[in-house]
Amino acid sequence: MIDDDHLRDACGVFGVFDHAEAAHIAYLGLHALQHRGQESAGIVVSDGATLHRHLGEGLVADVFGERELDRLPGSLAIGHVRYSTTGGTGLRNAQPIAVRYGGGQVAIAHNGNLTNAAALRARLEDEGSIFASSGDTECIVHLFAKSRRDTAPDRLVDALRQVEGAYALTVMTRDQLIGVRDPHGVRPLVIGRLGDAWVLASETCALHLIQARYEREVQPGEMVIIDADGLRSLRPFEPVRRRACVFEHVYFARPDSRIFGESVYAVRRNLGRQLAREAPVPADVVIPVPDSGIAAAIGYSAEAGVPYGMGLVRSHYVGRTFIEPAQSIRHFGVKLKLAPVFEVIEGQRVVVIDDSLVRGTTSHKIISLLREAGAREVHLRISSPAITNPCFYGIDTPDRAQLIAAQHDVDAIRAFLGCDSLAFLSREGLLRAAGGPEKGFCDACFTGDYPIAVDGRPPAR
Amino acid sequence: MIDDDHLRDACGVFGVFDHAEAAHIAYLGLHALQHRGQESAGIVVSDGATLHRHLGEGLVADVFGERELDRLPGSLAIGHVRYSTTGGTGLRNAQPIAVRYGGGQVAIAHNGNLTNAAALRARLEDEGSIFASSGDTECIVHLFAKSRRDTAPDRLVDALRQVEGAYALTVMTRDQLIGVRDPHGVRPLVIGRLGDAWVLASETCALHLIQARYEREVQPGEMVIIDADGLRSLRPFEPVRRRACVFEHVYFARPDSRIFGESVYAVRRNLGRQLAREAPVPADVVIPVPDSGIAAAIGYSAEAGVPYGMGLVRSHYVGRTFIEPAQSIRHFGVKLKLAPVFEVIEGQRVVVIDDSLVRGTTSHKIISLLREAGAREVHLRISSPAITNPCFYGIDTPDRAQLIAAQHDVDAIRAFLGCDSLAFLSREGLLRAAGGPEKGFCDACFTGDYPIAVDGRPPAR
Amino acid sequence: MIDDDHLRDACGVFGVFDHAEAAHIAYLGLHALQHRGQESAGIVVSDGATLHRHLGEGLVADVFGERELDRLPGSLAIGHVRYSTTGGTGLRNAQPIAVRYGGGQVAIAHNGNLTNAAALRARLEDEGSIFASSGDTECIVHLFAKSRRDTAPDRLVDALRQVEGAYALTVMTRDQLIGVRDPHGVRPLVIGRLGDAWVLASETCALHLIQARYEREVQPGEMVIIDADGLRSLRPFEPVRRRACVFEHVYFARPDSRIFGESVYAVRRNLGRQLAREAPVPADVVIPVPDSGIAAAIGYSAEAGVPYGMGLVRSHYVGRTFIEPAQSIRHFGVKLKLAPVFEVIEGQRVVVIDDSLVRGTTSHKIISLLREAGAREVHLRISSPAITNPCFYGIDTPDRAQLIAAQHDVDAIRAFLGCDSLAFLSREGLLRAAGGPEKGFCDACFTGDYPIAVDGRPPAR
Amino acid sequence: MIDDDHLRDACGVFGVFDHAEAAHIAYLGLHALQHRGQESAGIVVSDGATLHRHLGEGLVADVFGERELDRLPGSLAIGHVRYSTTGGTGLRNAQPIAVRYGGGQVAIAHNGNLTNAAALRARLEDEGSIFASSGDTECIVHLFAKSRRDTAPDRLVDALRQVEGAYALTVMTRDQLIGVRDPHGVRPLVIGRLGDAWVLASETCALHLIQARYEREVQPGEMVIIDADGLRSLRPFEPVRRRACVFEHVYFARPDSRIFGESVYAVRRNLGRQLAREAPVPADVVIPVPDSGIAAAIGYSAEAGVPYGMGLVRSHYVGRTFIEPAQSIRHFGVKLKLAPVFEVIEGQRVVVIDDSLVRGTTSHKIISLLREAGAREVHLRISSPAITNPCFYGIDTPDRAQLIAAQHDVDAIRAFLGCDSLAFLSREGLLRAAGGPEKGFCDACFTGDYPIAVDGRPPAR
Repeated sequence: MIDDDHLRDACGVFGVFDHAEAAHIAYLGLHALQHRGQESAGIVVSDGATLHRHLGEGLVADVFGERELDRLPGSLAIGHVRYSTTGGTGLRNAQPIAVRYGGGQVAIAHNGNLTNAAALRARLEDEGSIFASSGDTECIVHLFAKSRRDTAPDRLVDALRQVEGAYALTVMTRDQLIGVRDPHGVRPLVIGRLGDAWVLASETCALHLIQARYEREVQPGEMVIIDADGLRSLRPFEPVRRRACVFEHVYFARPDSRIFGESVYAVRRNLGRQLAREAPVPADVVIPVPDSGIAAAIGYSAEAGVPYGMGLVRSHYVGRTFIEPAQSIRHFGVKLKLAPVFEVIEGQRVVVIDDSLVRGTTSHKIISLLREAGAREVHLRISSPAITNPCFYGIDTPDRAQLIAAQHDVDAIRAFLGCDSLAFLSREGLLRAAGGPEKGFCDACFTGDYPIAVDGRPPAR
Repeated sequence: MIDDDHLRDACGVFGVFDHAEAAHIAYLGLHALQHRGQESAGIVVSDGATLHRHLGEGLVADVFGERELDRLPGSLAIGHVRYSTTGGTGLRNAQPIAVRYGGGQVAIAHNGNLTNAAALRARLEDEGSIFASSGDTECIVHLFAKSRRDTAPDRLVDALRQVEGAYALTVMTRDQLIGVRDPHGVRPLVIGRLGDAWVLASETCALHLIQARYEREVQPGEMVIIDADGLRSLRPFEPVRRRACVFEHVYFARPDSRIFGESVYAVRRNLGRQLAREAPVPADVVIPVPDSGIAAAIGYSAEAGVPYGMGLVRSHYVGRTFIEPAQSIRHFGVKLKLAPVFEVIEGQRVVVIDDSLVRGTTSHKIISLLREAGAREVHLRISSPAITNPCFYGIDTPDRAQLIAAQHDVDAIRAFLGCDSLAFLSREGLLRAAGGPEKGFCDACFTGDYPIAVDGRPPAR
Repeated sequence: MIDDDHLRDACGVFGVFDHAEAAHIAYLGLHALQHRGQESAGIVVSDGATLHRHLGEGLVADVFGERELDRLPGSLAIGHVRYSTTGGTGLRNAQPIAVRYGGGQVAIAHNGNLTNAAALRARLEDEGSIFASSGDTECIVHLFAKSRRDTAPDRLVDALRQVEGAYALTVMTRDQLIGVRDPHGVRPLVIGRLGDAWVLASETCALHLIQARYEREVQPGEMVIIDADGLRSLRPFEPVRRRACVFEHVYFARPDSRIFGESVYAVRRNLGRQLAREAPVPADVVIPVPDSGIAAAIGYSAEAGVPYGMGLVRSHYVGRTFIEPAQSIRHFGVKLKLAPVFEVIEGQRVVVIDDSLVRGTTSHKIISLLREAGAREVHLRISSPAITNPCFYGIDTPDRAQLIAAQHDVDAIRAFLGCDSLAFLSREGLLRAAGGPEKGFCDACFTGDYPIAVDGRPPAR
Repeated sequence: MIDDDHLRDACGVFGVFDHAEAAHIAYLGLHALQHRGQESAGIVVSDGATLHRHLGEGLVADVFGERELDRLPGSLAIGHVRYSTTGGTGLRNAQPIAVRYGGGQVAIAHNGNLTNAAALRARLEDEGSIFASSGDTECIVHLFAKSRRDTAPDRLVDALRQVEGAYALTVMTRDQLIGVRDPHGVRPLVIGRLGDAWVLASETCALHLIQARYEREVQPGEMVIIDADGLRSLRPFEPVRRRACVFEHVYFARPDSRIFGESVYAVRRNLGRQLAREAPVPADVVIPVPDSGIAAAIGYSAEAGVPYGMGLVRSHYVGRTFIEPAQSIRHFGVKLKLAPVFEVIEGQRVVVIDDSLVRGTTSHKIISLLREAGAREVHLRISSPAITNPCFYGIDTPDRAQLIAAQHDVDAIRAFLGCDSLAFLSREGLLRAAGGPEKGFCDACFTGDYPIAVDGRPPAR
C-alpha cells in the first residue's frame, strides 16, 4: 500500500511523567510515531501549576522548533499525532484537547473511535454542553467535567463507563499522567521507563528512540495512574474478550515495534511465509511494494525459494503536490513515488507482495508499470485477506462502495488489476501468523464480525 | 500615543446579512476596523445550513487570501479583530467563537469585557462546563447553550441577563444575525445598509469602505435581530443611564468614524481647541505626535493662533522586531518610528500635542528627541485628563502601578518627562468637547467613577 | 502622490568604514532610506580579507534578521535599497553587485542611471564580456575590471570617465570605501561621522537614525576615498554646471532630510507658500494628500490664511494585494489607502494639495472621494509644475504617453480630474523655493531641458 | 552510506528541445534527478527570442510551483540540480548560469569539475573578466563569450578546448540545445526522444518518468547539437581512453537507471555477489544499510545462501534539523534515520552491507545500534574498495585526512568501527562487476590512479 491507497489510522499518543525535559521527550516520541499521523501534532505540558499547549498542522518537526519547545516547560507531558481532519479548519480537531473545568485543567490525547458518540453528543448538547470540534474525543472531556466525582481518575472512570468503542488514551492533569485502553484493547498502548521517568506510547518504536526500556502493555480495560506515588493500576470495567486490531500488524505499526506482545516484523514475515504456502506460483523473482510489503516479501521469498529483488524503487523526494503537465503522463502519480527497475522486471515472472488491497487503484497502476517495464507475468499476492468491511474503531477506511473486495470477487478484481494471478491470505493464516486466534483479535474489516456495537446496534455487514 | 505606549482595545466586531459575498464584505469591514485589533482576525459564515469559520493570527490581509475566502460560502457572516492574547497559544482566545449546541450552531464576536466573568465561570465549571479559552466571551456561549428557551434570541437574552459588564456583540446562527449592546452602551455598534443587505460594525468607517449607508446606532441595551423578516428591535434589559466610553473619542476610534452620534475628528479638534483655551503657552509652533495627536494639534493651533508644523515624521516601514546594534543607540525604538524635522524644531518653542498619557515612557523619549533636535522649549499638552485608573470594560490599560498619573502629580510627571511645561485637559473640557456631559459617558479611567461593579463590588479607585 | 501613481526612484545607497558593527549600521542606514526603494535590499561587508554579501527581495527588516547580520562580519560595509526590477527574477538586478576581478574583490551600490549604457554594453559584449543583469551598473564593474590601472580608485576613475549619466555610488574593496557623485551631481550623497567611523548615505535621515553627525555633501564630480589613512578627496572629472535633481525636493527625499544643502521640509513648505501666492482661491479648508502633500499644505494654509485640516486619513495596514469583491466597490484601491473625513469635507470648499501630478488616475479618484463625501468645491493645487517629460537620470517616470500633462493642457486635465479648479506651481516658483535657480538644478521632467545627452544625443522633448 | 557520511555529487543536468511544455518536462526530469543534488534547482527556457530563468534553494518541488512554471514559456529548456554550495549565499553558485554576451544569450548547466579552473580564472581576471560565482563553470561561460567564432557550437568548442577536467554539459541558446561530455567521459549523459522532442539527461531514470525512450549515451568527447534541423554530432576533441566514474555505479546513480551502458541495479547486485565470493563469513542474516546497500545485500544473500532481512528501518520523516534534548541520547542523529528491528538482529550473526566507507563515523554508530539491539556478531561488508584518495572530477569527497581508509589499515578501521570483521571488495571485483576493466573506468578514489592532471600536474596520491 502506498500513500494514496492508504488506510488511515486516527493517531498516535504519547505521555511522559517526571522527566526534566518532558516536552522534548514527547517531541521525539511523537516523531517516532509520525507514521500514525502526519496532519497535525500537539503537545501539552504541565509546569506543576498550569498546562501549556502547542498544536500545529504538519509534521512534528515542522510544528515544533526550539522556540516552541522552550515555551513548554515542565516534567509532565502528553502528545498526539493525528491523521486527517475532515474539512478546512484543520486545527479545530487537533489534539491533545486541553480545557479548564471545575476541578482544574485536564488534557487528553485519543487514538481510536467511539461508537456511541452521536448519542452521547445529543444527550450532552441537550443538557447545554457546547462542542468546539466535530470529533468524538470531546464527549469524553464533557463527561469528565460533568462527573460529580472528586479525583481526575475517578472522573475519567465515570466518563469512560458511559462510552463505547475503541480508545487508547493518554490523559494528564497538572500532576498526574493516566493511560487507559478500552476493555477490548483494540488500539495498542505500552509502558516504558526512562531512568526514573515513566513513558506511555502507542508503539515501542517511540521507546527505542528515546532509549526508554519496554516494561509491558497497558492491558485491555486497564487504567494506569502515574503520579508522585508511582504507578497504580485499576481495572474499572467489566472484563470482555480481547479484540486487538489485527490490521496494526498488517499495515499500521512500524516493523521495528512490538505490539500486542509480538514483533511486527516477525508477524509480517510470517504473513509472507504463510502466503507462500497458501498461494504458491512458479516465478523468477519476488518483489515488495515498498515499504509496506518488504517484510512479507522477504518471508514469501524465503518460503517459496524464489529470489527476492528490488523491483520498485521508492522516491524519497515526494512531499507536496506535483504539477502535472497538460500532456498527461500515464500513471503520473504513482510514477513520482515508484520507479520500476528494468533489470529485475524485464522478461521475468514477477510475484509482487503488498500488505493489503483497499480500492485497488494504485495496485492497478503498479501492475501497469511492471508490465510496461517488460514483466512476462505479474502475480499479485496480498499478505492479508480481502477487505470487505469498513472499520468503525479508529481506522479511516473508505466506505464499502469503494472497497474493491466488498464489491467484486477475486476473479473480477484480478481482471480489473490486470495481473496474471491474484491471491489473498486466508483469515486463518492471518491469525496464525499474528500469534494465533486465541490471542483475541478484531478482524472485522476482513470478516464483518464487529465486536462492538455502533450507534447501539451491530453494524450492517 | 504611539504603539508601545498603547492602550489596547479588545476588538472590533462586524456582521452582514443577506449579501451574496458575505465573507468578502466581512473581510473588508474588518480591514477598516483593523486599528481596533491587529493580533488575530476571524470570520464565520453560514451557508444556510452550516457555519464555516476561518481564524488566524495577524492582520486581516495576512489571515485571509482568495483561498480562505472561497472556503467561506454564504450570505450571512460575522467577523472579529482582536488585540492581544496573553500567552503563547494565541489562537485559543481568537474570535468569533463558533460552537455546536443542542439547538444547532452559534457564533459570537465580542468587543468589551464582562465584569462578573469569574463568578459565572466558577458556577458554570461547577455545573460541569468546560472552558477552552481563558476569555470571558465563552461564558456567554455556555449560558446560551444551557438556556431552556427555544429561539436563539431568547437564549441570548437569557444569557445576557446573567452577565454584567461592557459588550457590543455580533451573533449569528445559520439564518439570523443579532447585534446587541450592554445596557450602559459602553462600546459602540452601528447599523448600516448595503443595498438590501444589513450591516453591523463597531464604527462607521467600516461602512464607508464597503459603501454601505449609515442607518443609526444600536442603542444601549438594544438587541436587533435581523433575519428573512427584516430587522426587529428588542429592549430586554432594565434601562440604566448611558455610559459611552469617552476614550473611544480620545484615542481608539478612527477619526473618519462617527460614534455615539458625533464625528470623532470634530471631537478631537474640539479637544485641541479647548486645550488651547485651558492651557495656553507662548510658542512658535504646534506639532502633533503622529498620528493620534493630529486632529487635536490642528484644533490647538487654530485656537491659539500658533502655526501648525510637522515636527515629527512617522515611518511607514516599522513592522517587525528590529535588531539593535550592541553599541546601543539612544531612544532606538522610538527613533525607528519617529524622526524629528530639524527645520521645524531647531531653536523653536514647541508645543507637542498628544492624545493621552499612559506610562509616560514614550513621551519622555519624544521630548528627548525634540531637545536633541534643538528645541528651545518643549511644552507637552495632552488632549485628555490624566489617566489615574485602569479600565475594566474592555480596554487593556496597565494596572495603576504603571499609570504615571496614578502615582505622581503633574509637577513630578513634568520633571520625569523633561518638558518645560505640561498640561492635561480638564474633565469638564473633555466632556464638553465630546458633546456635553448630558450625553452620558464613562470616564472612569480619568475619574475612578466606575458605572458597573466588578466582581460584584465597586472597583477600588 | 500615493503609491500607485508613484514616480519611482532607483535606490538609496549607504557605506560605513571602521565600525565594529558595520553590517548592523548599514542595516539601520538602509532602513532609514527605505522610502527610496522597497523591492530589494542588500549589504556587502569586508572582514578584511574577503567580501560577504546578503541580498533579498522585500523590505530591509524582512531581508535581514539576526542570523543574516551575524553572517556579515567586518568593519567596512556598503548597502543598497532598490525600487523595482523589471521582470520576474527579481534578485538578478539586486545590488550591491559584488565580483572577483584580477585585483581581488569589489562591490558597488548605485543610485542613478547611465545614459550611455547601451553603447558601453555593446562594446563590452563585443570584447567578450558577459552580463548577468540587465542593469547599467554592471557596465561600471566591467570597465573597472578591465582597467589596466593598479589601484581600485584609479580603476574606478578609469571606468567612470567612460560613462555618462547620473550616479551616486558607494564602492568598496576589502579595505577601502569610496563615494562618488557624477559631475552634475544629479543624485544626492552625504558624508557623516559616527565616532571615528565614516558614513556615506543618500540622505541625512540615515545619519540621524544611527546618531552620526552630518559633515558635508560629497560634491558633484568629487570622489572620496576612505581607508586606514582617513578620507582623501579627488576631482577626477572635467567640472560642469551643477544640476541637482529638483524632484528630490518635490517628492523623493524624506522631509526630515537635508539634501543639496537645504531642509527638505522647509523647501516643501515654501513650495506651498509660493503656490498660495501664485494660485489663491476662496476656500474653507486646505487639506493634504497624505503624506507627500503635508508640508506644502501647511505652507499653503499659512500663507493663504485658510484653515488646515486632515481631510483624508491614511491607513497603516495596506501592505499586500487586497481581494476585491465581485460586486465591485467604486475607487476600491484608493479607498483602502485613504478615507475621507466627512466632518472636514462636507459642505466645504476644499483646497487639496498634492506634490506632483503624474498619470492623474489617483488624483481623479481622490477628487471623486471628496465629492462623494460632500465637498462643495474641490480645488486641486500641485506644489510643482506639470510633468511633461520623462526622466533619464534615475527616476522611473512613465513614458510621455502616460504623463497626463504631456498630453493635455490644464483645462483638459481639470476636466478629466473633475475638480473645480486646478493649478500647478510655476517653474520659477519651484526653483525659488528650492534655494534659487543659481544653485543649479535639473528640472528636465518639467521643462525638457535635459542637461546630459542620452545614447549620445539630446533626448527628444 | 546514509546522508551525513555522504559523498556528494556535484549535480544533475537536463535538457529538452521542441516540447510545448519544456519547463514542465524539465521540472519532472530534475525531480527524477533529485538524488544528484538537493540544495538548489534551476530551469532556463527560451521562448524563441529571450531566455527566462528561475532558480531557488531547496528541492525541485519547493523551488517550482505552478506560478514559477507559468513564467517559463517556451519549447526549449535546460535544468540543473546541485548538491551544495560552500558558504552562505547559496544562490550565487546555483545553475544553470545564464548570461548575455556579444552574440545574444546563452545558458549552461554543468555536472563535473574542471581541473585547470584556477589557471583559467587567473588568466581571465587578468584580461579584465569579472566573476560572480566561485564555481568553475563560469570559466566556460567567459571563454565562450570571448571566442571570436560566430556560432554558439563553435564558441563552445573553442571554450572547451581550453578546459581540462570532467564535464557533462547541457547548453542552450535561444534556438539550440547542446549536450557534451568531456573526452574521458567521466560523468554520464544520455539522449532520449519524447515523441518528436529531444531530451538530454544525466541518467535514464529521468527519461522513464517523462515516458521518453532511451536512444543512446552521448559518447565521451562527443558534442550533440540539437536544433530545428535535428541532431548533429561533432567529435571536436582528441580521442583519449574512456574513464567513466565507477563510483556512479557504486553509489550515485539511481538503481533503476542505466548508465555507461549497464543497469545500475544489476551492477550493484553483482558487487554483492562478488563480495560474498571474496569475503564470506558464517552468519544468520544479511541486512543492508538502507537504501544504498539494498541491491548489494540482495546479491550477497543470494550468493552466500544466507537469509536476507530488513534489520534497519529507515524513517521517511527526517527532513530538517532535529532538536536534541540536553540529556543527550546515544547516536541521536543516526537513530532519527535508522531504527534496528530487534526480531532480525537479536542473538544473530549479522552481515551488514554498505556501498562504501568514507569517514566511518556513521558506520560506527550503525554497528553500535546493532550491538545494542542484541546482535551476537556484526560483520561489515563494503561493496567497493577502500576509499583512499579524494575525487577531483566532480564528487565532493572529504580530503584525505578525513578518509578513514587513507589513514588506517583494515584492522585499525575494524577496531574503530567495533565490528567483528570487516571486508572491502577488491578493485578487480569492482571492475568485473561493473562490466569489466576493458570498459574503461576512473577508479582514482580507490587507487589514486588519476587520469586527468589537476592544476597542470598529477595529483599527489
